[in-house]
Amino acid sequence: MIDISGSGQLPLLTQRLSDLRASPVRAMLEASQKPDVISFAGGLPAPETFAKATLPASAEAALQYGPSEGEPRLRALIAEELQAIGLDCDADQVLILSGSQQGIDLSAKLTVDAGTRIAVESPTYLAALQVFRFFGAAFESMPPDLSVNWTRQDHPAMAYIIPTFQNPTGRCWSADEREAFAHNCEASDVILFEDDPYRDLAYEACERRPVASWMKQGSWIYQGSFSKTLSPGLRLGFMVASRDLYPHLLLLKQAADLHSNRLSQYMVIDQLTAPDRAARRDFLVSTYRARRDAFADAMRRHLGNAVEWQVPPGGLFFWLTLPDHVDVDALLAAAIKRKVLFTPGRPFYADEALASPSIRLNFSHASQEAADAGLAILGDLLRA
Amino acid sequence: MIDISGSGQLPLLTQRLSDLRASPVRAMLEASQKPDVISFAGGLPAPETFAKATLPASAEAALQYGPSEGEPRLRALIAEELQAIGLDCDADQVLILSGSQQGIDLSAKLTVDAGTRIAVESPTYLAALQVFRFFGAAFESMPPDLSVNWTRQDHPAMAYIIPTFQNPTGRCWSADEREAFAHNCEASDVILFEDDPYRDLAYEACERRPVASWMKQGSWIYQGSFSKTLSPGLRLGFMVASRDLYPHLLLLKQAADLHSNRLSQYMVIDQLTAPDRAARRDFLVSTYRARRDAFADAMRRHLGNAVEWQVPPGGLFFWLTLPDHVDVDALLAAAIKRKVLFTPGRPFYADEALASPSIRLNFSHASQEAADAGLAILGDLLRA
Repeated sequence: MIDISGSGQLPLLTQRLSDLRASPVRAMLEASQKPDVISFAGGLPAPETFAKATLPASAEAALQYGPSEGEPRLRALIAEELQAIGLDCDADQVLILSGSQQGIDLSAKLTVDAGTRIAVESPTYLAALQVFRFFGAAFESMPPDLSVNWTRQDHPAMAYIIPTFQNPTGRCWSADEREAFAHNCEASDVILFEDDPYRDLAYEACERRPVASWMKQGSWIYQGSFSKTLSPGLRLGFMVASRDLYPHLLLLKQAADLHSNRLSQYMVIDQLTAPDRAARRDFLVSTYRARRDAFADAMRRHLGNAVEWQVPPGGLFFWLTLPDHVDVDALLAAAIKRKVLFTPGRPFYADEALASPSIRLNFSHASQEAADAGLAILGDLLRA
Repeated sequence: MIDISGSGQLPLLTQRLSDLRASPVRAMLEASQKPDVISFAGGLPAPETFAKATLPASAEAALQYGPSEGEPRLRALIAEELQAIGLDCDADQVLILSGSQQGIDLSAKLTVDAGTRIAVESPTYLAALQVFRFFGAAFESMPPDLSVNWTRQDHPAMAYIIPTFQNPTGRCWSADEREAFAHNCEASDVILFEDDPYRDLAYEACERRPVASWMKQGSWIYQGSFSKTLSPGLRLGFMVASRDLYPHLLLLKQAADLHSNRLSQYMVIDQLTAPDRAARRDFLVSTYRARRDAFADAMRRHLGNAVEWQVPPGGLFFWLTLPDHVDVDALLAAAIKRKVLFTPGRPFYADEALASPSIRLNFSHASQEAADAGLAILGDLLRA
């Protein structure tokens, strides 16, 4: 846990720091990695799904400084894959990131001054809220049906969305919702920022075509991650952007860390072109689907009817709405005492007044036995 | 070259973007890696000095998400080494960075609002100016003798310095200068930000004790890099900070990219603890010393008396002051036509009015033959 309360008399620091809050997910990471703790917090992939770490043949070449844009071969592979899912883009619109969290930082730097309006789902990814808030964003929480009344005269600067297996809710937007939202952004000059780290973790058939693929004009950013499908320790993601935004994002990337780790980029090239890639993805999806289903069974057995939730069609999380009288902070404190961790729902809301008692449970990391034991404890605590 | 001129009608972007300029060094990187180009631009280390890329024994463990602070073992090793050079710090003050460029981004986020005063050497590292400028810094260029008249009532928020083998000048501060500057910062509540990527590239005996080691109170950040001594493609550096600043920097790191590449961290642990480490460092230093000396000889032969320069005691660069009538932009254009690259001096100045015609030449990357040929061409152009 990062304690910034005891820092005492501080020198001249930026005003924005007071708006920067520790991510409760990251703060619990250390505790979550102790062997006797059952963690439903975080979004840790299951290590048994990782490809074996293998040094790429061209490792020596990877040791020198490289281009800020990323390795040309990796950019080309990503562009090909995006074209195949309907996103019209070229390799020169691809920017390799040091993980997709960096894409949020760059996008915030691109758009957010103090008071800049950013539209978000409610709830949405808390570490995105953290970054936008740091740069001074004024949030506009969109209603669940995504209805907005933006005009060219009155609109947020950017809309940040996770339309596919959303974090934290697991929801997947329909084709109609995707198309309508893209048209709304186009018609009102709103930059679309689509975050898509979970798209390969699909356990049911559902629409996954990028919202950005419906943007025939206008400005957009689409980003993806290798953390969930390959491995997170490599810290690699990517962003694709409309041609008006790309040069600015590239400059911001250059200023942030010159370029991303080259050895990781070469390793990802090898993994994306490996003959067993499709088999590995099938294994990943079937592993997580089985965990999701077992998790849902255990929830039905242990949590009772007072808790509302749906089986997510993809992604890594269950989103639980609790009865109004539940004090989530007290529930978490009691759970931690019994060595069970989860993520409270409140930090996922830009406007906390919209939050009802809720929690997010990750199902990808804990074993089936651990998940059952942890959910039994949560059920006990909810009845108490 | 990043072209942002043709972007046309832009959506709502932050005001700060207009202050973000492409680094001329990064812009020339692509050209510099063509085989028939002789590049004195950039600061590319010589690949023959890199340790062989070897997968660490614990590679599999490195694939999962890790702590934002960095790997505990690496933080402990770094703290030990800093204690050995006089900097009083513990492992829990060490933050692993995705290269030391990231440390500049985090420090700027920590301190700089629009109009915040940042004191800098003149000239100084251009990519630091780029980042501070993006966040809105008002620069205060310090005189060459570092004399400043700061008080607790009137002082910059932070002083950014490279006291050891400075980029671009190669200068190394004396012990007296270091101690006096630390006391100035302490006495006037200025945050000291010491950037020290070149300290191991010492070709002559000179004072290298960190300025931060003289700070007995007050706020300070000291950062170093593995890019020059191990390899830049790994994108790893580190920062150590006084206890009042550290928690904020850690939060900013978390928001920027969650954590640094773990495989690189494990590789650096292996390299720092390898039995041949001292021998490798000796080889690195003797290789670069020989290149520096050969480069100086070639400059004496080719450049004539009108150009002023000194042999740097360490680091990667010669800094050349040219006669007043030389148009450096025209010189660069002519040099590029003859496939020779260098970095113009002007972007290294926060206040360009202080810049006289000057250029920076890197001596670590080009072979001795290439350096001789390139300097002969530069000499030709200067006489023309």
